[in-house]
Amino acid sequence: MFNNITNEKIYQQVINQIQNMILEGKLKNGDKLMSERELSQKMGVSRTSIREALRVLETMGIIESRQGEGNFICNKIETSLMQPLSMMFTLNNGDYKDIIELRQMIELEAVKLAAIRGTDEELEELKMISQRLTKKDEIYNKGEIDKEIHYKITCMSKNFLIKSLYTISLNLLENFIINSRQKIVEFYHEEETLNLQHKKICEAIIDRDPESAYKYMKEHLDLIKFTMEKI
Amino acid sequence: MFNNITNEKIYQQVINQIQNMILEGKLKNGDKLMSERELSQKMGVSRTSIREALRVLETMGIIESRQGEGNFICNKIETSLMQPLSMMFTLNNGDYKDIIELRQMIELEAVKLAAIRGTDEELEELKMISQRLTKKDEIYNKGEIDKEIHYKITCMSKNFLIKSLYTISLNLLENFIINSRQKIVEFYHEEETLNLQHKKICEAIIDRDPESAYKYMKEHLDLIKFTMEKI
Repeated sequence: MFNNITNEKIYQQVINQIQNMILEGKLKNGDKLMSERELSQKMGVSRTSIREALRVLETMGIIESRQGEGNFICNKIETSLMQPLSMMFTLNNGDYKDIIELRQMIELEAVKLAAIRGTDEELEELKMISQRLTKKDEIYNKGEIDKEIHYKITCMSKNFLIKSLYTISLNLLENFIINSRQKIVEFYHEEETLNLQHKKICEAIIDRDPESAYKYMKEHLDLIKFTMEKI
Repeated sequence: MFNNITNEKIYQQVINQIQNMILEGKLKNGDKLMSERELSQKMGVSRTSIREALRVLETMGIIESRQGEGNFICNKIETSLMQPLSMMFTLNNGDYKDIIELRQMIELEAVKLAAIRGTDEELEELKMISQRLTKKDEIYNKGEIDKEIHYKITCMSKNFLIKSLYTISLNLLENFIINSRQKIVEFYHEEETLNLQHKKICEAIIDRDPESAYKYMKEHLDLIKFTMEKI
């Protein structure tokens, strides 16, 4: 099952072996890994190297360490990838225009798929979230609800990769959505336009009308682009 | 500069502190980190915890350890993120249709931007890669060149996030591009159609004609979709 390891950068090779077993389908979601001691014997490396490798895999969201039970294969990779993309963006002095284009690319596609593939239950949930946007006594920040609507729509696309890449970008998008909403509200001295845009997008999805959903999402993202470039 | 650490999951907190310093712009690309000993003293944690944290950051492509010189902030995050997305896809029993949709989403946008933003030098490079596709004495696998053309076009979009997300997906896309090319060639008993499609896409980009580039890319991706669904 495991191969013996001889070269340097031992912990990296331990990681590679476990990753490959996942990619080959030999280790599945929920599977329990051998103990550190057993892994160390099977691979012929020190327990320190095994522990280092397990730490990396845990941080990457690939294994979950349960107190007293051992290490299990899990799938929290998405969440662990959010921080890295934000860091890459910062280290490369990323431009907010890239975020606008990314949103246009992902969300204009996702909104059409959501109108086609969303389940009745999801349409109901979307309706409830969108209603919260105009509620006077809503305790949550409107930016948070705004963000929630866009995320929900992307999940409703039912495309695992589109959803994953959006999730990975969520840290970046989150700040962007909240900032741009604030700027638009300040610029127009009202938030009715924004609320109406979200209402129209959600209604089109609920009516299972992909063309209108696309059209209203485009109007919404164009307004954001216009305002961000103007200010 | 660094805060003292008291709670459990020490190595994770060390990682968080370093990540936050990057996100806040206090640590930049190429900066040298303090030595393990200094970090351990400043943060009040063991050298083992520091080493574990550094191993994780190294695997994530955030720091680079140079023999005898120390640890430096680097930006190889993209490459380190490829494997995780492939694993997520496998752990979720991903569907190849998701990959087709992802390609349509990213590449139809990227090809338009490439025609507008590609530098003259890049257009020249693209021309040279595309010519290799029809060379009789080309030693590389045609699937590899095919993949290279699509990656080059995405990089020419000049959108850092679009390029990054494509890079992160490259492991998945790579296998898909090579497999689907093989299937199309087997199905039609020729590869001229595929080569002609790439030629048209590249020529439209070189002519700086985003609409034609989009149209030919769509024809190409539609052929892939059609063939993959049929076989």
